[in-house]
Amino acid sequence: MNIIEEEQTAFEIGVVVPKRNVEEENEDCNCLEVLVDEFTKVGFIVERVQGVADEFIKLAAPLETLGRAAAELKLKKRTHIGMDLQFEWEEVDAFVKQHDGSLFSWFERFHCYNHLIYGIVNKSKSAVTLTYDGKEFCWEVGENLVPKLESVHFIKQVFPLHDEIKRKKLLKNWALNWWDITDQPIDEIYSYFGAKIAIYFAFLGMYTRWMFFPAAFAITVQLIDFGSLQLLVLPIFFIGIILWAVMFSQFWKRKNSALLARWQISYSVGVEPGYKLLGMEWGSLQTPVKALRKWGTDKTNEKEVYQRSEWFGHLLRFRNDAIVIMSIIFLQLPFELAYAHLYEVIVSDVMKFGLTAVYLFAIQRFTRIGGKISVKLIKYENNETAEKRADSLVYKVFGLYFMQTYIGVFYHALLHRNFLTLRQVLIQRLLISEVLENLLENSLPYLKYSYKKYRVRKKKRCEKGSSTGKIQFSSRVEKEYLKPSYTASIGEELEDGLFDDCLELALQFGMIMMFACAFPLAFAFATLNNITEIRTDALKLLAMLKRPVPRAATTIGAWLNIFQFLIVMSICTNCAFLAWFYDHEGKWSIEPGLAIILVIEHILLLIKFGFSRFVPEEPAWVRANRVKNATQAQDVCSKQLLRTISGGRKMFGKVKESEKNDL
Amino acid sequence: MNIIEEEQTAFEIGVVVPKRNVEEENEDCNCLEVLVDEFTKVGFIVERVQGVADEFIKLAAPLETLGRAAAELKLKKRTHIGMDLQFEWEEVDAFVKQHDGSLFSWFERFHCYNHLIYGIVNKSKSAVTLTYDGKEFCWEVGENLVPKLESVHFIKQVFPLHDEIKRKKLLKNWALNWWDITDQPIDEIYSYFGAKIAIYFAFLGMYTRWMFFPAAFAITVQLIDFGSLQLLVLPIFFIGIILWAVMFSQFWKRKNSALLARWQISYSVGVEPGYKLLGMEWGSLQTPVKALRKWGTDKTNEKEVYQRSEWFGHLLRFRNDAIVIMSIIFLQLPFELAYAHLYEVIVSDVMKFGLTAVYLFAIQRFTRIGGKISVKLIKYENNETAEKRADSLVYKVFGLYFMQTYIGVFYHALLHRNFLTLRQVLIQRLLISEVLENLLENSLPYLKYSYKKYRVRKKKRCEKGSSTGKIQFSSRVEKEYLKPSYTASIGEELEDGLFDDCLELALQFGMIMMFACAFPLAFAFATLNNITEIRTDALKLLAMLKRPVPRAATTIGAWLNIFQFLIVMSICTNCAFLAWFYDHEGKWSIEPGLAIILVIEHILLLIKFGFSRFVPEEPAWVRANRVKNATQAQDVCSKQLLRTISGGRKMFGKVKESEKNDL
Repeated sequence: MNIIEEEQTAFEIGVVVPKRNVEEENEDCNCLEVLVDEFTKVGFIVERVQGVADEFIKLAAPLETLGRAAAELKLKKRTHIGMDLQFEWEEVDAFVKQHDGSLFSWFERFHCYNHLIYGIVNKSKSAVTLTYDGKEFCWEVGENLVPKLESVHFIKQVFPLHDEIKRKKLLKNWALNWWDITDQPIDEIYSYFGAKIAIYFAFLGMYTRWMFFPAAFAITVQLIDFGSLQLLVLPIFFIGIILWAVMFSQFWKRKNSALLARWQISYSVGVEPGYKLLGMEWGSLQTPVKALRKWGTDKTNEKEVYQRSEWFGHLLRFRNDAIVIMSIIFLQLPFELAYAHLYEVIVSDVMKFGLTAVYLFAIQRFTRIGGKISVKLIKYENNETAEKRADSLVYKVFGLYFMQTYIGVFYHALLHRNFLTLRQVLIQRLLISEVLENLLENSLPYLKYSYKKYRVRKKKRCEKGSSTGKIQFSSRVEKEYLKPSYTASIGEELEDGLFDDCLELALQFGMIMMFACAFPLAFAFATLNNITEIRTDALKLLAMLKRPVPRAATTIGAWLNIFQFLIVMSICTNCAFLAWFYDHEGKWSIEPGLAIILVIEHILLLIKFGFSRFVPEEPAWVRANRVKNATQAQDVCSKQLLRTISGGRKMFGKVKESEKNDL
Repeated sequence: MNIIEEEQTAFEIGVVVPKRNVEEENEDCNCLEVLVDEFTKVGFIVERVQGVADEFIKLAAPLETLGRAAAELKLKKRTHIGMDLQFEWEEVDAFVKQHDGSLFSWFERFHCYNHLIYGIVNKSKSAVTLTYDGKEFCWEVGENLVPKLESVHFIKQVFPLHDEIKRKKLLKNWALNWWDITDQPIDEIYSYFGAKIAIYFAFLGMYTRWMFFPAAFAITVQLIDFGSLQLLVLPIFFIGIILWAVMFSQFWKRKNSALLARWQISYSVGVEPGYKLLGMEWGSLQTPVKALRKWGTDKTNEKEVYQRSEWFGHLLRFRNDAIVIMSIIFLQLPFELAYAHLYEVIVSDVMKFGLTAVYLFAIQRFTRIGGKISVKLIKYENNETAEKRADSLVYKVFGLYFMQTYIGVFYHALLHRNFLTLRQVLIQRLLISEVLENLLENSLPYLKYSYKKYRVRKKKRCEKGSSTGKIQFSSRVEKEYLKPSYTASIGEELEDGLFDDCLELALQFGMIMMFACAFPLAFAFATLNNITEIRTDALKLLAMLKRPVPRAATTIGAWLNIFQFLIVMSICTNCAFLAWFYDHEGKWSIEPGLAIILVIEHILLLIKFGFSRFVPEEPAWVRANRVKNATQAQDVCSKQLLRTISGGRKMFGKVKESEKNDL
């Protein structure tokens, strides 16, 4: 067995503790010493940094420490035979390394760090007395140290640190590399930020790249006069972009599974995530098991309990969805319509400005309240996995934003019945929303950071009593601590900042697709916007914010479904626009024109729902990859297992017995 | 280890060989002796039966013989920990028994029989000389006996035999048990006929049971006059049956996976079939591997080869689909329209009758030719599994029948623009097609059987030179041999007789759904028809035909997709009917009525495509079943495998090396 010699020197986790004044050094606080001691015992490389306002403990873990933690966590890792097995430090050679040469991915490393940090317990035979801030408290035998210290506010935060070398490299290769347009070093992003963020950027890149086609098409349509064929241009453009969107969403799925195959993450499309081995899922379905214990374990009863809990879950979700939809229709829709109508009716510009200000303020509050209600609602759903819960939240919040964003445009479209006004409204919305959002997105974190720095400085000055000396933040870790973290504007627990970025993207997609016939040039605007979006988002992640906590998600999840829903919506709305466009007399009669449009609509809907049957979501080579070397593995495994089952059938029997005894 | 004591005495396979005249007994044919000898050596229980025209060898296999064959075949079987593993005779205790107490299912038994019968090779050191019909030929060392004997026409047929005890029991419990209406002993059907046929009957039963609701609804609508609300009745009926159909297709999927769980057949929904262990599929994807050998095995090349073969496959399938669709539109559609139009135009009844006769004759030939072309076409597709190939065939042939069945009705609907005529046409079609088909279905096999008996008798009489003695078929096995087998009317290789039964069901479903608004009572007709269909199909299988060869399919496959397609079609057609029904002035103008209908259509389409997201295809308890005991199995397996990989990584490496050397 040859242990990997690579040295893991980068500090990846920072722990913030209060800075002690020099005079009270050895007096009333031994927490820090105990903590550093325990960290060293666990196997961390510890570095202490004195900041302006706080003290920081930087942690790095040698590979072996991580390996032991991974084995304790029973982490599944890809092996050389292409199968995921429980990690064992002794058999480290059996596991595949990452693209960048390290054994563990950033997500796995973070998981191990967390396990190690929060797993420190008092293993000695007696309680340890800790003092902090003049108070004394007891670290009991078997108690976890870090949660204890967090509960007494000694540890202020545990957060992942940027790796300066990699960060600088990414800044150069990625965030500031404008000339690459849509190309991004996805593998490096993956190894630095984890799968979820890398998948988002891969999606954004592919989306922008694909968007060049409709953008070019739109510019052609706009610039060239087709003479007598001018009437046919819009329908052809419409059919073209719908086909484009359908193909894009399917090919993105393929790209997604190809990426996962390259990163050696197991996730078969169409099957719920969760550790998979032997064709089964572990780790899912915890909820009804508890109920099972109560109800007994005989066969029929078990089935009944599962069925009851399943249908109860559906009922809850249905109720919550109904609540959200009803409140959107009966509370939000009238409000939006009232605003749109008032805006039309009012003549005075000042009044209009005032109204818009009131509206913007109200809408801000509305969405925040809506988001909070959604977060509360999904807590009452018994969604099986965290991922499903996040998806459920995404759908609910998107419903809100959907209504808010588009209803005004629809109102204008129906009121004016004239393409020019509609176009103006669209340009206003697109330009304003995108420019404003990009500005906000990038300046807000910086402002927050500056404000925090200012507050710290002010506090320090007050303490010192003088206002003369300029206080410098010399340590990098303290600066990072003051940077805002990458969080969603609604509920922080379930989603990170990607929620806002994805929402922006989805709303943009809906805007350009649903009103494609009214304003083809929107595609060109969106392309330009997305090219800048790639780099500004990268810059935000690398320079403005704390390093985000890596998440497990391996797809863009609910957002893809929302994209597909928007495609279907845009088939319907565009058909309506076309029908209305060719209906010069306002009679809305089914003459050949309208009939043809209806037929086109139905054919497009058919293509939308049929296309996924023709092009599978998983490329053949990815599937072949999964099968590789499997027959041999099967032989090895099968016989061993059989012997265990038939020999130790009593063992499995016993477990059931003991479960029964538990009752 | 306790070997299972159960005795397997039923003879399940019959082999037909020519009957020898008494005078030439020991003269020029030793084939039979060698064959029987070899069968006994393999471990079969052999019984020889003299028939009127042929001689029959009946074979039964004791459990151990089957077990050894299963181990040789590396059959996957469900174990007590709920996982499928390779069968090993020594570890027989680890495997779960069937519901009826036997170790192997009928499908597995048949597979083993086949393996044993066709696996007989000459193991001696020298070739054996066989004589038959005066000719001599050599059974070479290592050559398979049975294919050899089939090639010289000594073995006429190898076919599965009915098990008289079980057959009688099923006849009583199932085929003649009319009072159960839709209830059927599905488990017994499964253990006698295998999964595919049992699934079909389960589907037919559930479909009929569910159909009571729309039938009752339709009768209510027909009988009661709702007064001023009469206008609303049809739209409500329409919405009701669409919701009914959407729910039915989803709940059938649940029922299907519940049945498979009960029969302990592994097949996770949404994933292609194929033996699954360790989260991977074996046995799939053979095709491109050969190509791989040619192209080399390095990584990028491999991917390219797979991608090329995948896209080439899509291209082929697309081309074939295009051919089929084009020929349906440009050849069949004009023909059907011509017939419908001529039928309307012609006044004389005699001419009409003649026309219909010509039409029926032509259509028969047409569908047969179409079927043959489809079978040929799919041979040029590189579908990965036999199941996918069968599905591809089903789609193509259904396209043909779809056009043939419905186009006439649509023509009448559009021509007469009057519900009464349409209703008449529908009644005609429904009654005639269903009554005729049921009659044909049940009398044709009997007629075939009688004709065969007659021919054998005639031949015998000629040989004997006398025409006096009545020849009796006394042996049951000979009677079975003369019965027709359960084959599809198109191509025999891919599909069995279920193809015709499913086609009938799908056409009926399309007829009642697509014209639901025009003729609600069709549901009542269909219900009655299906109740008789259950029993007559059962009777046909048990009494009229040879025992069918069991097939591996675990779902009704492509047919469910066709049902779903028909639901979508029926949303569109019924909306058209409603629009037309409420359009009294023939103006087709978008007044509230038409607009509302369009809105309803879109909402129903949304429900159709959204419903499957709310109710998963696999009940929670089935999924829980799969996870049972899995953690322990994983522990056992994981460590063993890891040791093998990291220790024997060279082993896996070696294989790759040797593969490279193969080039």
